[in-house]
Amino acid sequence: MSAPGTIHGVGLGPGAVDLMSVRADRLLRNARHVAFFRKAGRAGQARGIVEGLLHPEAVEFPMEYPVTTEIPLSDPRYNEILSEFYETCAAHLRALSAQGEDVVVLCEGDPFFYGSFMHLHSRLTGNTPVQVVPATTGMSAAWTATGQPVTWGDDVLTVLMGTLPEGDLTRRMKDTDALVVMKIGRNMPKIRRALESAGLLARAWLVQYAAMARETVQPLAEADCENAPYFSIVIVHGQGRRP
Amino acid sequence: MSAPGTIHGVGLGPGAVDLMSVRADRLLRNARHVAFFRKAGRAGQARGIVEGLLHPEAVEFPMEYPVTTEIPLSDPRYNEILSEFYETCAAHLRALSAQGEDVVVLCEGDPFFYGSFMHLHSRLTGNTPVQVVPATTGMSAAWTATGQPVTWGDDVLTVLMGTLPEGDLTRRMKDTDALVVMKIGRNMPKIRRALESAGLLARAWLVQYAAMARETVQPLAEADCENAPYFSIVIVHGQGRRP
Ligand SMILES: C[S@@+](CC[C@H](N)C(=O)[O-])C[C@H]1O[C@@H](n2cnc3c(N)ncnc32)[C@H](O)[C@@H]1O
Ligand SMILES: C[S@@+](CC[C@H](N)C(=O)[O-])C[C@H]1O[C@@H](n2cnc3c(N)ncnc32)[C@H](O)[C@@H]1O
Repeated sequence: MSAPGTIHGVGLGPGAVDLMSVRADRLLRNARHVAFFRKAGRAGQARGIVEGLLHPEAVEFPMEYPVTTEIPLSDPRYNEILSEFYETCAAHLRALSAQGEDVVVLCEGDPFFYGSFMHLHSRLTGNTPVQVVPATTGMSAAWTATGQPVTWGDDVLTVLMGTLPEGDLTRRMKDTDALVVMKIGRNMPKIRRALESAGLLARAWLVQYAAMARETVQPLAEADCENAPYFSIVIVHGQGRRP
Repeated sequence: MSAPGTIHGVGLGPGAVDLMSVRADRLLRNARHVAFFRKAGRAGQARGIVEGLLHPEAVEFPMEYPVTTEIPLSDPRYNEILSEFYETCAAHLRALSAQGEDVVVLCEGDPFFYGSFMHLHSRLTGNTPVQVVPATTGMSAAWTATGQPVTWGDDVLTVLMGTLPEGDLTRRMKDTDALVVMKIGRNMPKIRRALESAGLLARAWLVQYAAMARETVQPLAEADCENAPYFSIVIVHGQGRRP
């Protein structure tokens, strides 16, 4: 029997192919098995980043999210369906590993920072060799795109998900020096209201598709909040000590 | 007259040379002018990461921090001395740019995330072409080293500097899902007390020299808090929704 293969959760960074690490680039070019998440009928964001880099003989394993748009997040069936999906994906990777095959799983940004790979990792760790390659996050690309540092001196940075209730968003926005909000999309009008209540609207930036070809940077107060894409990040810069 | 050169603030990532981005790697290998901060008498952490990569004809410009250990942070002279130092460094880079020379400034982690380069950037922007390359942060390497994701679902992440007063640390630690503390060193005993007051001591990890050859990962409760190095990060993992 051959030694088990390793499942590599490889962070690709925010989108530009040359913001990938040298380690990720090497793993990817040599990979014989490449897995990635995507929405049904879509090419997949992570798969798009590596277009043209993969080995011609690489076997691709697209992991298509089940369609859950009809089911409210609060319905227990939502979690069950997702859980079953992740378990099926993890089982496939486990089987490849058992055959001695290494697999590269493509991850947007940094794998351990709000990433989907985490749901495979938690099912593989302890029974299958797993390695994770950290990477540049979407938020680093977003604040770099604004052309201003995000945190100075002993500024406090708070990272919030736009999926939180408006009251929580407002309270936490009021109590931080620098701010990042992720998971925007349909939550944008709520996030905008929270920023306004917290007195931060005038200092907030909206970065769409950071480090991707379609990147845009604009003062949030001027942005179209009804049509913010999923790949959007809100940034409020800290104003700490700067000698 | 030649066109002005560009000052590139290049994030090198947390320490391992192959966690540098492909873009950083290319800029570095071709750079004719390379600047970096270091403490007097030290080789410099950022300079260490790129050892062996630089072009043989590269001209190095070490920027040595003035010795301020005798002056309390609260003394206005502290800020004045640092400010003068940064201005001198920026003037040198500005002069190189005016001669048409590009310069790569080496930055630990991501340049716009609590980085020293920011103090040059603020003096150059508007008068000299500046470009910034985002990178993997030290904290990404630190949570990856713990082998567990840092944030799930809609976990709130708070990033704190160990230089904050103990009361602030405790209050903010009590009110977050996931936590990162940076700038450790001599602040470690205070940080440990704050974690204990916040009820987080048992869940806290101390990562020293993340992604460097000397990397160590340990439960903070078991760590020697009197001798934590500057390159240390405290991580408390979030426990959010995981289908
Ligand atoms: C599931 S999280 C994944 C985060 C990722 N692991 C990272 O390290 O950036 C998805 C959210 O990340 C943010 N995001 C990630 N990359 C982005 C980019 N390049 N531009 C804009 N937003 C991005 C968006 O807010 C999006 O809703
Ligand atoms: C001035 S801040 C610079 C942060 C850097 N720009 C980044 O993106 O990680 C210095 C602090 O970063 C943390 N740090 C950065 N890289 C680290 C690493 N590889 N291992 C441990 N700590 C690190 C330490 O807490 C240190 O005190």
